[in-house]
Amino acid sequence: MILRLDPARLQGQIDSLAAISEVPPPTVTRILFSEADLRGRAFVTNLCHEMGLQVAKDAVGNLFARWPGTDPNLAPVATGSHIDAIPNAGRYDGVVGVLGGLEALRALKESGFKPRRTIELIVFTAEEPTRFGIGCLGSRLLSGALSPKKAAALRDIQGRTLEQWRKQAGYADRSLESVRQPKNCYAAFIELHIEQGPILEQEGVAIGVVEKIAAPSTLHVELTGVGGHAGAVLMPERHDALLAGAEIALAVEESALSTGHPDTVATTGVFRIEPGAVNSVPCRAWLEIDLRDTQQSSRDEALKRIEDRIPQICQRRGVVCRLERINADDPAICDAGLVERITEVCHELGLSVKKMISRAYHDSLFMVRICPTTMIFIPCRGGISHRPDEYSSPEHIGDGVRVLAWTLQKLAA
Amino acid sequence: MILRLDPARLQGQIDSLAAISEVPPPTVTRILFSEADLRGRAFVTNLCHEMGLQVAKDAVGNLFARWPGTDPNLAPVATGSHIDAIPNAGRYDGVVGVLGGLEALRALKESGFKPRRTIELIVFTAEEPTRFGIGCLGSRLLSGALSPKKAAALRDIQGRTLEQWRKQAGYADRSLESVRQPKNCYAAFIELHIEQGPILEQEGVAIGVVEKIAAPSTLHVELTGVGGHAGAVLMPERHDALLAGAEIALAVEESALSTGHPDTVATTGVFRIEPGAVNSVPCRAWLEIDLRDTQQSSRDEALKRIEDRIPQICQRRGVVCRLERINADDPAICDAGLVERITEVCHELGLSVKKMISRAYHDSLFMVRICPTTMIFIPCRGGISHRPDEYSSPEHIGDGVRVLAWTLQKLAA
Repeated sequence: MILRLDPARLQGQIDSLAAISEVPPPTVTRILFSEADLRGRAFVTNLCHEMGLQVAKDAVGNLFARWPGTDPNLAPVATGSHIDAIPNAGRYDGVVGVLGGLEALRALKESGFKPRRTIELIVFTAEEPTRFGIGCLGSRLLSGALSPKKAAALRDIQGRTLEQWRKQAGYADRSLESVRQPKNCYAAFIELHIEQGPILEQEGVAIGVVEKIAAPSTLHVELTGVGGHAGAVLMPERHDALLAGAEIALAVEESALSTGHPDTVATTGVFRIEPGAVNSVPCRAWLEIDLRDTQQSSRDEALKRIEDRIPQICQRRGVVCRLERINADDPAICDAGLVERITEVCHELGLSVKKMISRAYHDSLFMVRICPTTMIFIPCRGGISHRPDEYSSPEHIGDGVRVLAWTLQKLAA
Repeated sequence: MILRLDPARLQGQIDSLAAISEVPPPTVTRILFSEADLRGRAFVTNLCHEMGLQVAKDAVGNLFARWPGTDPNLAPVATGSHIDAIPNAGRYDGVVGVLGGLEALRALKESGFKPRRTIELIVFTAEEPTRFGIGCLGSRLLSGALSPKKAAALRDIQGRTLEQWRKQAGYADRSLESVRQPKNCYAAFIELHIEQGPILEQEGVAIGVVEKIAAPSTLHVELTGVGGHAGAVLMPERHDALLAGAEIALAVEESALSTGHPDTVATTGVFRIEPGAVNSVPCRAWLEIDLRDTQQSSRDEALKRIEDRIPQICQRRGVVCRLERINADDPAICDAGLVERITEVCHELGLSVKKMISRAYHDSLFMVRICPTTMIFIPCRGGISHRPDEYSSPEHIGDGVRVLAWTLQKLAA
């Protein structure tokens, strides 16, 4: 079987999808259920229809594009990723796994391959946590890691619920309960993704195969101090919500440094204050904190340290604190058999390969719970992602798609 | 002469103006040249027309309502304040001086008083710094404290200039050069205002007369770090703009505490970051810092301390810093003769009176430069301002208006 990939066609599609954004190029912003996100979904759905795939969607907007196999009794093989993008992001994160996955299916189709197992491309809803403060919304619900009741109650910054959003987006014909899939509904799930780290580039390796995904956790902090006139309220009388937030952000950094484990990372990525006027003492602040580690013990150590420090800081400053632990997920162990199979495919194709850990989380973190799962990583320039200058070359993307296509072929034959 | 004030009429007007806001009651937000600000100006202009005053406006939107005196060769006597309001403010700051000033003129008119000197009510443009980051825009230009060239170059957060805004608002028929008034264009300027501090309420004193206004200064800080994925960028590789900003905000607090002077106050009132996503390392931050003192030496000491610390913090974190000193104004010494005259009026009316310092700045800070100036303070509940629960009772407002009216009568007779 000869597999003919078309890297130029794929790059053209990546560029077209990048142009569907809430902000001008080269920056990409596609927040869950925004007009750009919905247009991005329509773009991908059209491509799937052009390829003759059967497209279905579930109650939270996860999309499933099916290439039916000859034996409908066998569990399908799946690939996929996400197309939503955080504010001021680039064009490759998630998208390479969706459009690259489609290119893999297209190349297999055009080669005349007839799969025994159905092959499915999944586009997960909201891998990025931007709207509701929680990542992997689609795969969490699909794998049962998030209860439909908790999900339904999620609210965005404007106070709009997931129920309102999914209704407006046209996904509310069924209840959120229907999203969950049983164990082993897929024979395998393989996610193609840019590395989002510098290792493959630095070592000149073409392909990474993921053995483990770091354990992420998220905290939301709401601080209520006392506002007032910046000229009239003397320093000893102040209960400044911003200053409590500033101390917390520095404590978050310190908590990651204190574990002594180089893979502990902690970030305050959201920091908003009210009223936000130069001559007014800030009376409220909202922080969103991300904490991860490849090692659960040091992640939990840092998490505890932050959760202990926040009330101390707030008590000293007379600021009222509401602290919510949004998630503290386990690290994911990928399927050893799949890791070996992909490694073999790389050897067969003459591509250098390295087993590695993913520090970023992905929908695969949750797919692990219901089926054998792993990820294929490709190098990205400088290890950079979540920025407009995120970049992966057509050659590297082509290598990843080729490995994915051959692996799907072997699994579905 | 019998002066008949109507506190209920005045309160009704204060409440009507409060309803003209960008946000629902009881909160008031009227940012310079917003639709609410323009509607607020129209509301006041209508009241002036109903009273038969001649209304003029200058090129930056300062409004002047004139009650012509019998001797046009004499310099007018002026009163007034502002109606713009910071985000999430209350209904009294500035407004008491405008609508209370109008009530004073109305009561004098209705009593049959015929002024020799013209009496003018001034509504200053943008006492609050919200849009352009600099307070007292109207009175700075009017007094010559701000050059028209510098003013024309001011930009708001969307990058729109003062030139664009004043054109859209209909004030651009003349150049900004025309706003400046010569020295002694007024025989006196007296601003009625809520205290914005707790002293009058705590001591049970009806009226404060201002001898000195604290020296304010403003810094803008723009921080550029390096963004990236919150899971993938390890801690030692980070150049987090938010964390540099957090350290700066704490250093600002420390600078005020370090002078040992109880009246030094320093506030980081604006703190914005980009991209502002929980899983992204903040790459940029913008801070606006307000620093004041009744004593210039300690204000300058704290200012120097902050300006020294900021580059140190940024250098250590590998974050690029742009630091701009927007203003560092002198404290204002009010006219001793006017202070005595108002004190006498209080004695005549049987009202308790106290000479005091204003920690908040006001348009009077700049009017001092061109004419004899002082302020009449009235108590406000808990010393609170710049908040929705800002409050001054109709009785206290009535006392302030009565003192203002009698003082204007004496000065204009």
